[in-house]
Amino acid sequence: MISPLEKTNILIEALPYIKKFYGRTVVIKYGGNAMVNDELRQAVIVDAVLMKFVGMNPVIVHGGGPEINRMLKRVGKETDFVNGLRVTDKETMEIVEMVLAGKINKEIVSLINQNGGKAVGLSGKDASFIQAKQKLAFIENEHGQRQEVDLGHVGAVAAINPEIINTVIEKGYIPVVAPIGLGEDGESYNINADTVAGEVAGALAADKLVLLTDVEGIMRDSSSADTLISSLAVSQIPALIKQGIIGGGMIPKVECCISALAKGVGRTHIIDGRLRHSLLLEIFTDEGIGTMVVRDEE
Amino acid sequence: MISPLEKTNILIEALPYIKKFYGRTVVIKYGGNAMVNDELRQAVIVDAVLMKFVGMNPVIVHGGGPEINRMLKRVGKETDFVNGLRVTDKETMEIVEMVLAGKINKEIVSLINQNGGKAVGLSGKDASFIQAKQKLAFIENEHGQRQEVDLGHVGAVAAINPEIINTVIEKGYIPVVAPIGLGEDGESYNINADTVAGEVAGALAADKLVLLTDVEGIMRDSSSADTLISSLAVSQIPALIKQGIIGGGMIPKVECCISALAKGVGRTHIIDGRLRHSLLLEIFTDEGIGTMVVRDEE
Amino acid sequence: MISPLEKTNILIEALPYIKKFYGRTVVIKYGGNAMVNDELRQAVIVDAVLMKFVGMNPVIVHGGGPEINRMLKRVGKETDFVNGLRVTDKETMEIVEMVLAGKINKEIVSLINQNGGKAVGLSGKDASFIQAKQKLAFIENEHGQRQEVDLGHVGAVAAINPEIINTVIEKGYIPVVAPIGLGEDGESYNINADTVAGEVAGALAADKLVLLTDVEGIMRDSSSADTLISSLAVSQIPALIKQGIIGGGMIPKVECCISALAKGVGRTHIIDGRLRHSLLLEIFTDEGIGTMVVRDEE
Amino acid sequence: MISPLEKTNILIEALPYIKKFYGRTVVIKYGGNAMVNDELRQAVIVDAVLMKFVGMNPVIVHGGGPEINRMLKRVGKETDFVNGLRVTDKETMEIVEMVLAGKINKEIVSLINQNGGKAVGLSGKDASFIQAKQKLAFIENEHGQRQEVDLGHVGAVAAINPEIINTVIEKGYIPVVAPIGLGEDGESYNINADTVAGEVAGALAADKLVLLTDVEGIMRDSSSADTLISSLAVSQIPALIKQGIIGGGMIPKVECCISALAKGVGRTHIIDGRLRHSLLLEIFTDEGIGTMVVRDEE
Amino acid sequence: MISPLEKTNILIEALPYIKKFYGRTVVIKYGGNAMVNDELRQAVIVDAVLMKFVGMNPVIVHGGGPEINRMLKRVGKETDFVNGLRVTDKETMEIVEMVLAGKINKEIVSLINQNGGKAVGLSGKDASFIQAKQKLAFIENEHGQRQEVDLGHVGAVAAINPEIINTVIEKGYIPVVAPIGLGEDGESYNINADTVAGEVAGALAADKLVLLTDVEGIMRDSSSADTLISSLAVSQIPALIKQGIIGGGMIPKVECCISALAKGVGRTHIIDGRLRHSLLLEIFTDEGIGTMVVRDEE
Amino acid sequence: MISPLEKTNILIEALPYIKKFYGRTVVIKYGGNAMVNDELRQAVIVDAVLMKFVGMNPVIVHGGGPEINRMLKRVGKETDFVNGLRVTDKETMEIVEMVLAGKINKEIVSLINQNGGKAVGLSGKDASFIQAKQKLAFIENEHGQRQEVDLGHVGAVAAINPEIINTVIEKGYIPVVAPIGLGEDGESYNINADTVAGEVAGALAADKLVLLTDVEGIMRDSSSADTLISSLAVSQIPALIKQGIIGGGMIPKVECCISALAKGVGRTHIIDGRLRHSLLLEIFTDEGIGTMVVRDEE
Repeated sequence: MISPLEKTNILIEALPYIKKFYGRTVVIKYGGNAMVNDELRQAVIVDAVLMKFVGMNPVIVHGGGPEINRMLKRVGKETDFVNGLRVTDKETMEIVEMVLAGKINKEIVSLINQNGGKAVGLSGKDASFIQAKQKLAFIENEHGQRQEVDLGHVGAVAAINPEIINTVIEKGYIPVVAPIGLGEDGESYNINADTVAGEVAGALAADKLVLLTDVEGIMRDSSSADTLISSLAVSQIPALIKQGIIGGGMIPKVECCISALAKGVGRTHIIDGRLRHSLLLEIFTDEGIGTMVVRDEE
Repeated sequence: MISPLEKTNILIEALPYIKKFYGRTVVIKYGGNAMVNDELRQAVIVDAVLMKFVGMNPVIVHGGGPEINRMLKRVGKETDFVNGLRVTDKETMEIVEMVLAGKINKEIVSLINQNGGKAVGLSGKDASFIQAKQKLAFIENEHGQRQEVDLGHVGAVAAINPEIINTVIEKGYIPVVAPIGLGEDGESYNINADTVAGEVAGALAADKLVLLTDVEGIMRDSSSADTLISSLAVSQIPALIKQGIIGGGMIPKVECCISALAKGVGRTHIIDGRLRHSLLLEIFTDEGIGTMVVRDEE
Repeated sequence: MISPLEKTNILIEALPYIKKFYGRTVVIKYGGNAMVNDELRQAVIVDAVLMKFVGMNPVIVHGGGPEINRMLKRVGKETDFVNGLRVTDKETMEIVEMVLAGKINKEIVSLINQNGGKAVGLSGKDASFIQAKQKLAFIENEHGQRQEVDLGHVGAVAAINPEIINTVIEKGYIPVVAPIGLGEDGESYNINADTVAGEVAGALAADKLVLLTDVEGIMRDSSSADTLISSLAVSQIPALIKQGIIGGGMIPKVECCISALAKGVGRTHIIDGRLRHSLLLEIFTDEGIGTMVVRDEE
Repeated sequence: MISPLEKTNILIEALPYIKKFYGRTVVIKYGGNAMVNDELRQAVIVDAVLMKFVGMNPVIVHGGGPEINRMLKRVGKETDFVNGLRVTDKETMEIVEMVLAGKINKEIVSLINQNGGKAVGLSGKDASFIQAKQKLAFIENEHGQRQEVDLGHVGAVAAINPEIINTVIEKGYIPVVAPIGLGEDGESYNINADTVAGEVAGALAADKLVLLTDVEGIMRDSSSADTLISSLAVSQIPALIKQGIIGGGMIPKVECCISALAKGVGRTHIIDGRLRHSLLLEIFTDEGIGTMVVRDEE
Repeated sequence: MISPLEKTNILIEALPYIKKFYGRTVVIKYGGNAMVNDELRQAVIVDAVLMKFVGMNPVIVHGGGPEINRMLKRVGKETDFVNGLRVTDKETMEIVEMVLAGKINKEIVSLINQNGGKAVGLSGKDASFIQAKQKLAFIENEHGQRQEVDLGHVGAVAAINPEIINTVIEKGYIPVVAPIGLGEDGESYNINADTVAGEVAGALAADKLVLLTDVEGIMRDSSSADTLISSLAVSQIPALIKQGIIGGGMIPKVECCISALAKGVGRTHIIDGRLRHSLLLEIFTDEGIGTMVVRDEE
Repeated sequence: MISPLEKTNILIEALPYIKKFYGRTVVIKYGGNAMVNDELRQAVIVDAVLMKFVGMNPVIVHGGGPEINRMLKRVGKETDFVNGLRVTDKETMEIVEMVLAGKINKEIVSLINQNGGKAVGLSGKDASFIQAKQKLAFIENEHGQRQEVDLGHVGAVAAINPEIINTVIEKGYIPVVAPIGLGEDGESYNINADTVAGEVAGALAADKLVLLTDVEGIMRDSSSADTLISSLAVSQIPALIKQGIIGGGMIPKVECCISALAKGVGRTHIIDGRLRHSLLLEIFTDEGIGTMVVRDEE
């Protein structure tokens, strides 16, 4: 049992961190286990609410998690894959958008409101704030030639207009963003949530971008937590990719960090969303958690 | 062919109406055929955009239309009816919310943005702006006794907090509202869109509430357009209900008008959404269209 | 007879133009027949009021028309001409100022107010907003030598201080400007209204300058409307002057356009004020009317 | 010769008066000799500028003085009198308005600007701020019966909308008002300047109304300055009128004071405009000058 | 050792309290041991800074502590006592003011600034915000008669003008107030710091008034902490005074609470300043500490 | 005796000066006889209040005068001098700070408030607005070598953060500054008041810095007022120092002027505080008084 006085002392210990991040904007890519597990989900939401109350401006960008597949399966919609890439036809996109903007987004909004915060959910269509274009994808054909493949409604960010997010932040709300973009053709595009988080962080000139993942961070030896790389400069990354230390799904996450840094984001973090209160642990401890990716000059 | 000068003259004719409604708030219940038919949908959207550009503040509250049934059918979800009332269990509610907030709402937002307006979609969960409670429903049982029946997630409005809508209006956006309420229990409730439109109009002290329906208005003889009642005072309504002139689905619409007038809304209108540009016709012609329901003193 | 629905369709056709000019400042030089003819006058005023209501910021600069001569005649004041230039002595100036600032200006203000707009009349003396200096004029004497001639109170613009106009615009009024300047000596100066319109447009960084004239625009052959030049780049002008296509009273108007473009005005137009609703026709039709003078790069 | 130190001491003596009137609104009816005599005119203007600089908000309402008659004479316009009341036909009104709004108003504005202040001239037509109605006038006919007489464009104040004056004051300008009102019929009306000053003071809830006249104030014996009544409560006035001590042209001035007090003006003063710097003498001396008319309770 | 995760959990536990007090104004009377002991002083300052950072508006009113006596002794100034009341002559007052406003106030300001907050020190003379009058005091003379005694510069609050405090709060500073009042005579008055805290809390309509004392609160048996009265309604107080449970120096403190509640302060607290972080303990624990004095209706 | 009219004329004479300095910031170093002599003190205060009321923004920085010595003597504190420089140990600093911030500062504040102004006293610790560092001092030792000497709490300005002063000015108060700085170590530092005035003037980009001294200005022959140098460019100063015309205590004052000019202050003045209303005499007379030090280009 921790006594009230000990608790008070811990609040006091938090003061330097509160000061340090007062008024700062933190964009959080929220996905993976942290979204699936009830306890973890509750913890992330509470972390964001606490951040808002102690003067930070958290912005949540969420992914879709297993809900999309569950719903596609339920309506009996089969999706094609071309060389491992899912083709998102109009019908699939409709389901994707309903799940992202109509279910997951509103659940997060509701959870924040129930935990004492005030949230407003936004899809990139609202105020046309995420302008999208089709994402180019290439496969190698049977003759070993590079060939473009039409993935349908899979999008990339063409531009971010942060006005509506800034309005929502200034009025005291936590913006919750579904990664849907609006094409010039008026069509919806499903965009990778890490990418959206990075672009939104860039457009807001955020102080921090935090990607919640299902790993502890970047590890020299993925089987040993002791080999976690806690800080990484951009220039060190190519070699680590070559050596295979950064590989697979981590590569786009790291690229997202590099791109956000180039757009003026202060620091970027890849942290373990499977850890309860990982957001607060990153912010309220000196050592932080996970892997921080920073500009070379730091 | 109409010459440019004739066109200009028509713009000039619109001036007195523009002046009259400058700065006024108009809440529009959008549903029925006007939402199903492509051409009508386009016309309603353009009407709202035009209203915004000539200085009015339109607010759109939409219903669900046939999309909800289509999706329920698609996922093989059967819904029970108790004496004609649909029971909305948790699973049904999930589908309803996805369709309303994730599909229809975003389609309207997108359509407005493509037509040169700026829209922001809101579900009642956003900023907790529609607080809901379960709607009480009663049936008569076999012994002729009145008996409460649990309709599940069918809701009534407990309170409206218009702050987020006002913010969105002030910043130049058209708010588009999905009729989902947030219960104290954190659950979603599906609320009748007419009811939400009326309550939102009341909370905003709107100048006008316009219900787009699939009839021409209230008619003494439903088979004859000539018998349309163009203006109706609240005190005249009970007699018309008794006589059966107002009946069926029109009764809740009329009650919604009465309630909105009691909350301070200026005027209320039941108009024919099957008519192209019915919104503008109501506002930009002296005689208006459909049936206007007003306070007795007028 | 045009039906209400056709009228509504015409309003809708105006929407793209309303969007295009929303928030734009348009300085209108108002003079000639459009000021003399009752019907035309009414049409210009209504055009300006409509422009204000659909989000533009019209600014009206008016000339004096035949009223000045009529009053001079009435008081028996004869004015001298030196080589065709009228000499404006102190007594003449007094009459000129009274007519411009006390009669014509107030009539326009009153007409706008009666047509549902809100106008405020300003002479360049108000808030000292048009600072004037004497206009230099030269004649050729009997020995063929260039000789300066004192035209008295005929002025040129020394500086524009747009603060009062901006205040008036922001508060929702249409500014109506009489072309009187205040000299350093405290004397009044009569300045050409085209010049004042161009200078005011420059000082406000207006989007458009529109000169209402009594011709259809610049024509290759003044006897044939078919030869109207609808668009003209600045660099094309010297040749046209040389060829005599631009000549006489059109030269100072074109120079006024060139000067306004150089000061940052978006586009300049010389249009036919004898046409009812010429202002709206210029703005609300794709082809526009009259002659548009633009920068070369366009 | 007064030494710099003595001068400084006099500034210091002014401090309590500056404090007392800081932020206060003072409406000044400017007319009579103070407008005719060059030296007096300069003095009044400088007084107003000084008042503005030491934190007061002076508002000047001017009359027409002999200029109107001079111009009427000049254009050969004869005016009829019915029992001593001038009939103002349309043609006369036109001359009156030009002189008031186009000449006198602009001269005052210019004089203020040249003396370091910033002034904006307004006629009651600007922003429709003085709404007028025809003034009812009655004569006694040959049968001794009261009979209404049509004086044409002689007006009374129907309403004052002070918005434009408040805007002008807030932006640091001194408003200069010509006593022209706008009738519902769109016609101009000439209104007595004392009346306009009183009504404007009432609409602004001014702290002071000062009427500059050509007498020293109200005197028990008009031939003896010693009999000046320096302070007068409203209830004392009827007796003084009965006794003939207040008579002739002083009656409407006193009535104007009574009306302004009833509308909430703090204090009203009838002072001698023939005295140089009478405005400052009234404000910066304990005893004041002229006659002060106050509410009974004071 | 407490782990980072446990610490994070404790922050999360604080969230409901942070929400509850977000935006609330808390006036703290700071004195006694909490001001003398270095460790306690540091803790109080840090508590106030934390309160500011998590959205509360703390206002500190300090007493003089032993510093005043020390300085009086040092300058060899003896002070008279009349029936136990210290007489504060002009010379004593001078020392008192220097110590309060020049030493203690600035030490607190400096300590806050060093701990990451931003403080501005104010004496009641600044902006004349505490207007004082002499405090009436009475003694019983040898004949048993009540006799007024002149205590010199001992003051009572005549009025509080909170403008400067509100300005300072809005700009993000913590106001630190020395209990000096300004008499109408321009003299300084020493006012009891509890009284000033209560009056300032009243003028600010504060949510909380917290008096830091050197006892645990009000106890039924002062020798036993178990008998602490944790909550007390105003109506219960007279009986407790009669019974001697509230006595001595506690009486004025309780009266100060009663007076503050009457002026609209939400809740008042008498807590133990000898306890480290007693301020945070009061706010961040359900049970609070010390004795809370509330209105009867609660 | 000066008549009211003569007085009014003198006010009018002041108008050009009022205009010239309207909205200007004037930092006044207040010290010497002007602080000791009751009559002079009153005059300076009234001058500052008048300046505020006629639209200037006076900022007062005061020195300590003989009060500090008196209090040091009274508490029996002896201070050491090293080669003529006073060593300020911690105990001395405590007394210095109490006298400056707790006595003199509050007396000036109170005097301004009593004379109709509104003042707020600030020490450099408030809002940490004067950041200080120890002042380096050097003496020559017995071997003729330059040797650093530790003068204790004698400070130099490290940085000025003018935010709190700007806030106070905007809200209509006169800031009164005690020359105490806050070291990085949290210690207080006594800084020369001329220096603080110059630095504050620089940080505020003041229009004027006025140093009140006990001499008439810089004189070629200090025994003859006729030799007063009324204007001096920076480049002329070195020669005058060489010639001994500027010497002793005047050197740091002149250096303070040079430094303020370099930081962007408009003009600097060394004037005679022994003269009643010297501040107003400097501002309200053409010739000014004392010596003005200006940039070379003027």
